[in-house]
Amino acid sequence: MLKLYYAADTCSLATHIVLEEVGANYATARIDFVTQQQRSPEYLAINPKGRVPALVTDRGILTETPAMLAFVAQSFPAAGLAPFDDAFAFAEVQAFNSYLCSTLHVAHSHRMRGSRWADDEAAIAAMQRKVPQSVTACYELIERDMLKGPWVMGERYTICDPYLFTLAQWLEQDGVDPYRIPRVVDHRRRVSERAAVRKAIAEELA
Amino acid sequence: MLKLYYAADTCSLATHIVLEEVGANYATARIDFVTQQQRSPEYLAINPKGRVPALVTDRGILTETPAMLAFVAQSFPAAGLAPFDDAFAFAEVQAFNSYLCSTLHVAHSHRMRGSRWADDEAAIAAMQRKVPQSVTACYELIERDMLKGPWVMGERYTICDPYLFTLAQWLEQDGVDPYRIPRVVDHRRRVSERAAVRKAIAEELA
Repeated sequence: MLKLYYAADTCSLATHIVLEEVGANYATARIDFVTQQQRSPEYLAINPKGRVPALVTDRGILTETPAMLAFVAQSFPAAGLAPFDDAFAFAEVQAFNSYLCSTLHVAHSHRMRGSRWADDEAAIAAMQRKVPQSVTACYELIERDMLKGPWVMGERYTICDPYLFTLAQWLEQDGVDPYRIPRVVDHRRRVSERAAVRKAIAEELA
Repeated sequence: MLKLYYAADTCSLATHIVLEEVGANYATARIDFVTQQQRSPEYLAINPKGRVPALVTDRGILTETPAMLAFVAQSFPAAGLAPFDDAFAFAEVQAFNSYLCSTLHVAHSHRMRGSRWADDEAAIAAMQRKVPQSVTACYELIERDMLKGPWVMGERYTICDPYLFTLAQWLEQDGVDPYRIPRVVDHRRRVSERAAVRKAIAEELA
């Protein structure tokens, strides 16, 4: 059985949603960031990166959201969440998710996690001040050039959709004006209405 | 025919190497960062992100190194550069490459590209000061927990190897002590000896 280590209000929600979407038999384990549980010896034995998510499988432990999403989709092909048989279409899916992890999520992280990249308080505050601009630039690119509609890849709901939805939870807190990115906000609303999404969120809030 | 847009001394070298490894019929186009060619209207029409690499295919244009590497490997299956038929093994490959793009490359980028995340000079200087520590932490994790040896995934050379090799070109400039990560440095040397790697580098230096 699969076991997802997650923390509330983090990118692990994307994998949680996809496990629901495919109907996987899985368990969850909540990691408490308030008590720094992600740095405990017990959790570092599972994920030495000290981050979430991590997915325990019968073959070993996986980390990194783009890889985990593709793994779940490939393991449950009937759900049709990624076009594995079409190298170009699959690369488009992976390119979108790679942009989310390496550019959008990174821009966002400069608001709360600046200490990863600088030590002094003034520098960390300077990073926070730029987050509205840098995160808005990412969303404007997605709005204009990447989100095909109605789903990220067009007519078909894929592993890109719950990942964008998850990161888009934070856009107002990041200082992005939602009226500048109406297609992203509309996409977020439509994803939020899916049964799998409601179920994953309800479990994380319980 | 495939066409790779690249810039010297950037992560586009990874895709260039993989195109050589698989024996693809491809052309290259060099983008000059000194003259900010990546921001030219002509290049933004190819890649609105204003970054390299970008790969023109007969189906459309791909960006993001992890996606491009997987695309080339999947398009040339005889080269055996990624285990597409094994969801877990493929996810391990993608997880490694995702870590490189979202964590190692990002840590490195705070040395030269700090203006992406802060505007004032003091903050950018503070970011630069932390690069030796943050990049070293990434390489120590790779050294200890991720690089199986002799290749990243063990006995088989995959798309992880040229990507790690490419980023490892910069570790001394980033202030990492190579004696702390002997397995990473040994891996870099062994990748450097491959014919495809020598050919790709020679073309970029020409």
